[in-house]
Amino acid sequence: MEEQREMSFRETTLNGFVSQLSTKAPVPGGGGASALVGAVGAALGCMVGSLTVGKKRYAAVEPEIRALMDRSLALQDELLALIDGDAEAFAPLAAAYALPSATEEEKAHKAEVMAVVLRDACDVPMKIMDACCRALELTKVFAEKGSVIAVSDAGVSAALCTAALKGASLNVYINTKAMADRALAQTLNAQADAMLAEYVPLGEEIFALVRAKLNK
Amino acid sequence: MEEQREMSFRETTLNGFVSQLSTKAPVPGGGGASALVGAVGAALGCMVGSLTVGKKRYAAVEPEIRALMDRSLALQDELLALIDGDAEAFAPLAAAYALPSATEEEKAHKAEVMAVVLRDACDVPMKIMDACCRALELTKVFAEKGSVIAVSDAGVSAALCTAALKGASLNVYINTKAMADRALAQTLNAQADAMLAEYVPLGEEIFALVRAKLNK
Repeated sequence: MEEQREMSFRETTLNGFVSQLSTKAPVPGGGGASALVGAVGAALGCMVGSLTVGKKRYAAVEPEIRALMDRSLALQDELLALIDGDAEAFAPLAAAYALPSATEEEKAHKAEVMAVVLRDACDVPMKIMDACCRALELTKVFAEKGSVIAVSDAGVSAALCTAALKGASLNVYINTKAMADRALAQTLNAQADAMLAEYVPLGEEIFALVRAKLNK
Repeated sequence: MEEQREMSFRETTLNGFVSQLSTKAPVPGGGGASALVGAVGAALGCMVGSLTVGKKRYAAVEPEIRALMDRSLALQDELLALIDGDAEAFAPLAAAYALPSATEEEKAHKAEVMAVVLRDACDVPMKIMDACCRALELTKVFAEKGSVIAVSDAGVSAALCTAALKGASLNVYINTKAMADRALAQTLNAQADAMLAEYVPLGEEIFALVRAKLNK
């Protein structure tokens, strides 16, 4: 536990992260990768804002853009922290799966522990999904009101935040699938489904808008 | 130029990369971000392979999976290198845009330089697109034949590689838009269009397949 807290993926290099991701090491995995891509996508939206503020042409939207940039920076930080959060939720999950289940007593204990760790393991990708939805809302405004010289970056931001949202959803579904409490599993699945249903089309709409502008 | 070659984004931390991306610094931008996400997506496919080899249950596919993992590692390395490649193509482009164009002579010189640097600036995102297409081909096999315990990671891989492909395409389109040679611009656009038309549906198909497996 101590060791895990000391290790922070945020401080690894791009080379190191990609390299470790490709191995069978349990972390990072799809959840952490989604969180990173969400952070990268949010940062690209923020970059559009950075290229907008301080320009006469965009003086009218500057206060709004500055406020969105602050929210974006907070989301980037949250998503980077969730890379580690995802890794920290994995150890108890792996330990629970490894619990013995020979006797009725062991089975009951294992079921109890599994219920707790699966809920925690869903919580992280759910937070990643939520942060990606917020990032997409910001990207929409950056794409519409931000500097035209960075419009392609707003489009990339939309594509990346959408993919991170979709990637994180799979990490919700794989954990709800293993839950004994089917009512809870269905509630969580419905929450994830609802975020996908609303925000994947938004991300695709922003991307299509940018592509159309560039192909004009 | 010297300074640029010394700086390698592959060696920056995740924190540092995301932080610099969010600023108005010209690099990294949407091209480099797409290359990183392609590398992360490819690495997740490779992770599925890593969790497959050495298992009795998957002995029959092991030689094929091992060969795909080697190709994946090469793609990851190529995509990480393209983060720096994208950054290196930016400086000459920015310098060309800043050339004077008051006299006819200056205009002719600027047009000549622009033609060269725009072609180079398209070349990098085209390579990123191509590598993402190759990565998606690998991910398809990892998803179909790889260990079921890592199926969600194959789905995340598909989502990320698809987004990286789409993101890189915008960096082709923004540069072809500025080209004076419209025939060349249309040829490059057609190449990018063709990659999107073939591989975005493939990525979405893999993702949908994984999601369906998890929601069963």
